[in-house]
Amino acid sequence: MEGVDILPHERSKKQFDVDAMKIVWAGSRHAFEVSDRMARLVASDPAFQKDNRSRLGRKELFKNTLRKATYAWKRIIELRLTEEEAGRLRFFVDEPAFTDLHWGMFVPAIKGQGTEEQQQKWLPLAYKMQIIGCYAQTELGHGSNVQGLETTATFDPDKDEFVIHSPTLTSSKWWPGGLGKVSTHAVVYARLITNGEEHGVHGFIVQLRSLDDHMPLPGITIGDIGMKFGNGAYNTMDNGVLTFHHVRIPRNQMLMRVFQVTREGKCVQSNVPRQLIYGTMVFVRQTIVADASSALSRAVCIATRYSAVRRQFGSQDGVETQVIDYKTQQNRLFPLLASAYAFRFVGEWLKWLYTDVTQRLQANDFSTLPEAHACTAGLKSLTTTATADAIEECRKLCGGHGYLCASGLPELFAVYVPACTYEGDNVVLLLQVARFLVKTVSQLGSGKEPIGTTAYLGRVQDLMQCRCEVQTAEDWLKPSVMLEAFEARSARMCVARAQNLSKFANPEDGFAELSADLVEAAVAHCQLIVVSKFFDKLQQDIPGNGVKQQLQNLCYIYALNLLHKHLGDFLSTGCITPKQASLANDQLRSLYSQVRPNAIALVDAFNYTDHYLGSVLGRYDGNVYPKLYEEAWKDPLNDSVLPDGYNEYIRPLLKQQLHNARL
Amino acid sequence: MEGVDILPHERSKKQFDVDAMKIVWAGSRHAFEVSDRMARLVASDPAFQKDNRSRLGRKELFKNTLRKATYAWKRIIELRLTEEEAGRLRFFVDEPAFTDLHWGMFVPAIKGQGTEEQQQKWLPLAYKMQIIGCYAQTELGHGSNVQGLETTATFDPDKDEFVIHSPTLTSSKWWPGGLGKVSTHAVVYARLITNGEEHGVHGFIVQLRSLDDHMPLPGITIGDIGMKFGNGAYNTMDNGVLTFHHVRIPRNQMLMRVFQVTREGKCVQSNVPRQLIYGTMVFVRQTIVADASSALSRAVCIATRYSAVRRQFGSQDGVETQVIDYKTQQNRLFPLLASAYAFRFVGEWLKWLYTDVTQRLQANDFSTLPEAHACTAGLKSLTTTATADAIEECRKLCGGHGYLCASGLPELFAVYVPACTYEGDNVVLLLQVARFLVKTVSQLGSGKEPIGTTAYLGRVQDLMQCRCEVQTAEDWLKPSVMLEAFEARSARMCVARAQNLSKFANPEDGFAELSADLVEAAVAHCQLIVVSKFFDKLQQDIPGNGVKQQLQNLCYIYALNLLHKHLGDFLSTGCITPKQASLANDQLRSLYSQVRPNAIALVDAFNYTDHYLGSVLGRYDGNVYPKLYEEAWKDPLNDSVLPDGYNEYIRPLLKQQLHNARL
Repeated sequence: MEGVDILPHERSKKQFDVDAMKIVWAGSRHAFEVSDRMARLVASDPAFQKDNRSRLGRKELFKNTLRKATYAWKRIIELRLTEEEAGRLRFFVDEPAFTDLHWGMFVPAIKGQGTEEQQQKWLPLAYKMQIIGCYAQTELGHGSNVQGLETTATFDPDKDEFVIHSPTLTSSKWWPGGLGKVSTHAVVYARLITNGEEHGVHGFIVQLRSLDDHMPLPGITIGDIGMKFGNGAYNTMDNGVLTFHHVRIPRNQMLMRVFQVTREGKCVQSNVPRQLIYGTMVFVRQTIVADASSALSRAVCIATRYSAVRRQFGSQDGVETQVIDYKTQQNRLFPLLASAYAFRFVGEWLKWLYTDVTQRLQANDFSTLPEAHACTAGLKSLTTTATADAIEECRKLCGGHGYLCASGLPELFAVYVPACTYEGDNVVLLLQVARFLVKTVSQLGSGKEPIGTTAYLGRVQDLMQCRCEVQTAEDWLKPSVMLEAFEARSARMCVARAQNLSKFANPEDGFAELSADLVEAAVAHCQLIVVSKFFDKLQQDIPGNGVKQQLQNLCYIYALNLLHKHLGDFLSTGCITPKQASLANDQLRSLYSQVRPNAIALVDAFNYTDHYLGSVLGRYDGNVYPKLYEEAWKDPLNDSVLPDGYNEYIRPLLKQQLHNARL
Repeated sequence: MEGVDILPHERSKKQFDVDAMKIVWAGSRHAFEVSDRMARLVASDPAFQKDNRSRLGRKELFKNTLRKATYAWKRIIELRLTEEEAGRLRFFVDEPAFTDLHWGMFVPAIKGQGTEEQQQKWLPLAYKMQIIGCYAQTELGHGSNVQGLETTATFDPDKDEFVIHSPTLTSSKWWPGGLGKVSTHAVVYARLITNGEEHGVHGFIVQLRSLDDHMPLPGITIGDIGMKFGNGAYNTMDNGVLTFHHVRIPRNQMLMRVFQVTREGKCVQSNVPRQLIYGTMVFVRQTIVADASSALSRAVCIATRYSAVRRQFGSQDGVETQVIDYKTQQNRLFPLLASAYAFRFVGEWLKWLYTDVTQRLQANDFSTLPEAHACTAGLKSLTTTATADAIEECRKLCGGHGYLCASGLPELFAVYVPACTYEGDNVVLLLQVARFLVKTVSQLGSGKEPIGTTAYLGRVQDLMQCRCEVQTAEDWLKPSVMLEAFEARSARMCVARAQNLSKFANPEDGFAELSADLVEAAVAHCQLIVVSKFFDKLQQDIPGNGVKQQLQNLCYIYALNLLHKHLGDFLSTGCITPKQASLANDQLRSLYSQVRPNAIALVDAFNYTDHYLGSVLGRYDGNVYPKLYEEAWKDPLNDSVLPDGYNEYIRPLLKQQLHNARL
């Protein structure tokens, strides 16, 4: 039962004000209070229990999610929760459901792409959930390449209707969450055809199911696409398949804020700028970065607490060493802890960026949009890839027991990994960033100054020549030194790539041939953004005893670990010397020692309830082993002493009577 | 339906003899024929169908596995299969079951650790499966540190019995496969106590369940430990928990080949060398390396075929580009293809090493054992870590559809990852390798020549000074150049680490402090082994048109990709220059182009049936989309048009009647 003693002891060693850190993590006192209140509300309500998820079959699991999602909505109404509170409540319910797509994609699509009139008609229905909507974009044969979608929407001027049709098997809508069994409506993306001409892909509001009896409407075939990765995880969601057989909708159900089809079937560009769509992408990707820090911090919280509870080897006085005291463990775990904080702060900054972009768009200023778009695309890619890997690393850091569903980590991994693919495949996004960087470099000296996160490229002359001044391990603890190393690395990689590209007669051939190299430059650039935004955060006034010191340590750990991991970049571009790299490693080890006594408190600062964590290994009280033991007996296999199949299979085997057995 | 045309077209482009490559992959014509016959036998028998696994609840799943494992045994008897054939049959059945532990751990433990007499008593029962055994070593509180196990076996001289007991909760046996519901017997590891004194951890044969009615015997509590990562996957296995309450067994059920307890309770070391145990470890880890190449090749086969079928973006003539033609895809996929072959050959060599070690042990020659032990430990770690990561990378390379269970990749990942933890945690193993390397370096010049895979360290003086001669990209295609770079890197890292260690007053403190650095040196050494064994393979006579050329390309891809990934090592130790690294990258791209037309044929050479692959995306005929569509409808959620829960939850929600709803 030592676990129960050990975490309080760990907590007594901390050197900073955890309550103040909780505010920093949450972003503000207000945000903390809302989160805290909603987390407790969910955790204390048995209706939201989730620890049986891995044991439920698909049908039971799905039905249970319908109940929870509906109950959550009922509570939201009863308690008259604000939009912010409702969002946090759903977050802590922690179970993918049709409501995610309704609120997260269907409603925003209508708000962003619908005319005033369309918004007035559809939004009140959606807000009350009198209709439930989903977002039907991807098809069996098309994901990343939206312009390649095959579903058609052909205008019929005789009837003033669009005919939605799936001309091929591969044009079947495939993946939309909430589609398979629940949604009554969808925003469907299809190729617009009027007068026999194609006019690109547009969104259409299509009713899928009867509001009377929920049966699919004529011409519509819908189903669930089947089991997905993991226990529980996204199997709570009815990701669906949908085909149309000449389904008719009124012309006014095309989302026409930006692009319109007239009664006569003519296409008209409205005076609303197309760029608004990029604003929405910035918004969605910013939330994905915020989600990355949530998922990562959750995994790190579990692995850190269990690393303090778990002992193995090295018996001094008969007590074995806590595994968190091993440098190999620290070297894998603490950079992930640092990443959780780093992603939190860069996510916070992206929220600001979205606000800034929105204000500019409203003032018809599109100047910052390409940079903002590249920046969010890159950070989406960087943070989701890192988080998916980190969750699995945290699972491994928990040793064998991390493989049990009771650890919470298998489900967290399985439910998280789609983030690397949805809303832009991570490699495709990095190629977009690379393209933007190459363009930026090519325009240097043309009078067009790079802005925002690419501003450092304006100092490219200096950065191509600067020499790192580090002579001692402590020298690495200067923001200017660290930033310069990351800026020089990124700038030199961008310039080198641009030069290699210029050797190709056809730039597109070059881009294709060198794409793997270009992706590396994009990663270097994005890592620089995260590091620099962490340093920016440290410039702010951060109250609370010792809080800033801890964040500084984490910031340097984040940066120095990246430097070590990507040492080839730093050395081959001549940004640092091997000797300086070795000093960076020494400094990293010293920082690990400084984090060690604060590690438990640093994950306590995430303020996660045991309900939300959903992990026996990560329990706040550290009472791991008795609870693991208790949990085991809940498995259906333990319902009876003899397993189903004993008489049919095991007994004949043991009794050497297989010749008669029915197998 | 383009998929059906595309793979035959791809196959027509190949530049080598696939049938000859199949023999190379299998290891010999005989091995190929046995594998091929068993694979077809399993694939053609509906009793071994497995594509419903992800949809089954735990109880159904487990019962189904009992049936298959028993049926497999019945077929093995009926067809009078050889041991080799039986092993391959179980391999292709591809479902973890109690039989794995019975044949893979229980029987070998008795063979390796039992006396002649014990073997004569127990093996015939085990060979006929009149008893079913498992291997009960790990406990709730102890995995890696076997010497820390808490279960006790106390000798009672009055009754000539051992009393097996679980003194604490954490001493509960935890994880053994086959234990939870099936095994009648176990080899149990416990601390031996005689006359009040402890004598280390030893193995004991303990009967767990009645052979009459399968009920647990008095004093024994057994159950299943609950759900594990993934759909299907290891949930087909009854990993178990077991506690003893003063359970008595006869003295002669202690496995006494090496260490004996006499009638009086005295401990006697037998004349059988303890080192035999290490021989067993070499054997087990060698099979794990072979399994790594199987799992990895399977994932690569799926991802490669689907990358040829899938098209996205870049429409020329209205047809989109096959994703396998993107350099970013090749850059991620082809090194994994190369790794599959690399691991296959290093696994083949380990088989030889095991034979060699065994022969030496029988001749009382223990001289090569430490090196063989370090080498297998390191390769187990290297190949399993790389394979686990690679399976997930292959899943991502399949885009969104890789997330569906129908892709086969989620289950392959979930069922594979425990290999990183069992039979030695991968980081703990690398530390053992590092310890061996440091010792080897410290003994250089003492007259004790390094042997086997460490022989290169005997040339450390040269390797500390050599300069890479590469001046053009083609220069990298010389085995001597490549090997020297990898040898120099590893040697310099080992020497540098040893020097850093020598700065510590207490070597153990140094080892703990620098452990993360030491692990890196161990990785460098192990990668060198894989590269050099690949080159050794190429020295052999390899028949078949173009076969050797393909293997050469893969060998260089494997090595050059590692060089790029670990560029920091190569540059910081001065083994190569940034310019040479850049040339290595150019060469890598050129090799990708050479592999491209052969990619499908190179995965066909694995000779996997569609049954074994278990993936709609990896189908031999490429008919992906219609089969994905078909598969979707099998989900239980599609049993009815309206989902369970419509009336209780969705309808009241839509009808705004939640106030009365029971949620």
